[in-house]
Amino acid sequence: MTVAYIGTGFHGFAAQKSGVTTVAGTLIAATEKVLGVPIDLTCAGRTDAGVHAWGQVVSFDVPEGCDLAGLQRSLNKLLGPSIVVRSVDAGPDGFDARRWATARAYRYTVVNRPVPDPFLAHLAWHIEEPLDLRAMQLACDPLIGEHDFTSFCKKPPSSTIGDPPSMVRRVHDARWTDLGEGVLRFEIEASAFCHQMVRSIVGTMVAVGKGRKRAGDMAWTLRSQDRSLASSPAPPQGLTLWSVAYDLSR
Amino acid sequence: MTVAYIGTGFHGFAAQKSGVTTVAGTLIAATEKVLGVPIDLTCAGRTDAGVHAWGQVVSFDVPEGCDLAGLQRSLNKLLGPSIVVRSVDAGPDGFDARRWATARAYRYTVVNRPVPDPFLAHLAWHIEEPLDLRAMQLACDPLIGEHDFTSFCKKPPSSTIGDPPSMVRRVHDARWTDLGEGVLRFEIEASAFCHQMVRSIVGTMVAVGKGRKRAGDMAWTLRSQDRSLASSPAPPQGLTLWSVAYDLSR
Repeated sequence: MTVAYIGTGFHGFAAQKSGVTTVAGTLIAATEKVLGVPIDLTCAGRTDAGVHAWGQVVSFDVPEGCDLAGLQRSLNKLLGPSIVVRSVDAGPDGFDARRWATARAYRYTVVNRPVPDPFLAHLAWHIEEPLDLRAMQLACDPLIGEHDFTSFCKKPPSSTIGDPPSMVRRVHDARWTDLGEGVLRFEIEASAFCHQMVRSIVGTMVAVGKGRKRAGDMAWTLRSQDRSLASSPAPPQGLTLWSVAYDLSR
Repeated sequence: MTVAYIGTGFHGFAAQKSGVTTVAGTLIAATEKVLGVPIDLTCAGRTDAGVHAWGQVVSFDVPEGCDLAGLQRSLNKLLGPSIVVRSVDAGPDGFDARRWATARAYRYTVVNRPVPDPFLAHLAWHIEEPLDLRAMQLACDPLIGEHDFTSFCKKPPSSTIGDPPSMVRRVHDARWTDLGEGVLRFEIEASAFCHQMVRSIVGTMVAVGKGRKRAGDMAWTLRSQDRSLASSPAPPQGLTLWSVAYDLSR
């Protein structure tokens, strides 16, 4: 299923202990109610609290002969305005929304003008100080390609067994666009993302836009593999998981 | 002051008894806190619960020598994300946001596609059934000009003294635009509006779009001055008070 949601009222995507409202918990409860059987739900990208999605993809097994169009209609009636099932499709045998994904694209929105906009307050980061968009655009270039993104990722909990997980990711595209009236959009597509990677990159790029860092510092920060050289992550409400790509021919 | 707000969390604009959160109540409390004196606030158009504004205009007296730019900054810090003071200006002597207004413009947004959009849920009316936009566009024509809008207005509470208030209003412009991807926008500008006038007009036009009424019924409904011929008002969350015009040369 392709799912859109406004993350504002949810404690992130991943299901948690009871009493905590999450996107996955809400989706699973509704889907199990409609199907009448327990499901094991997998998602393409776990979003943090306050982060939105336009094209999150989730997968689960359904009983044979399940009416997928009917499932979509029933879910959209049950789920209410904050979560919408945009489409439901039968996947190939063994399809898994996370493991089969070949790329994820995120968008981050900044409102850069003196006065905020209440219509965008829960969807963007309001920054009063004028940003140098050209410098932020230059800061995108070093990200493209395969790199170790340790500097821009929240360290995963340490484990005593096995190697630490790799922070190497391949970024296909990263760009800032001026949408007019002070609205700036960052788009980034990569094979996959580490935890808080987009928000850490945006936080560091905004420091470049404010003139507190130079565009060239981006390459240095990346190569350093030192989390302390990156800026604080940008706030969650500006971030949207935009789309997920799959190679279904495999 | 020009004020934008998301009406979702407010019980309408007009100040009410304590304990009820309204836009005016919130604005007055913040402004009195900043100025240190009580104010008497007038607005260009009272919006109902759930209705938004981009260009609401409010007026009040301030102590002589008041720093208007400082007032705006302080208010935007106090008010939080749902209400934003877009601008503050000194008006001519005797200026009154309601009585000096020469025109108000409203926008109403409809999302017309099978699947709703969580990003627009609190800003639009989702209608699954396909609408005939051309018929709705035709239905706009009879509204233009000076008419008695009794058929499209919530009856004001009756008073035993004096004549009932006039429902005559002059509509300067009314049009539907297709913004793409099923998003339809209705824009209407008039000298002034009666209570629930835009929502009643939109409700009736959507009945035309669904084929339950004909475009020609619009003229007949208007002339009948019979509220029962109009459809139920469209829901509030699609409506935004867009702008207010003034003739400051008077």
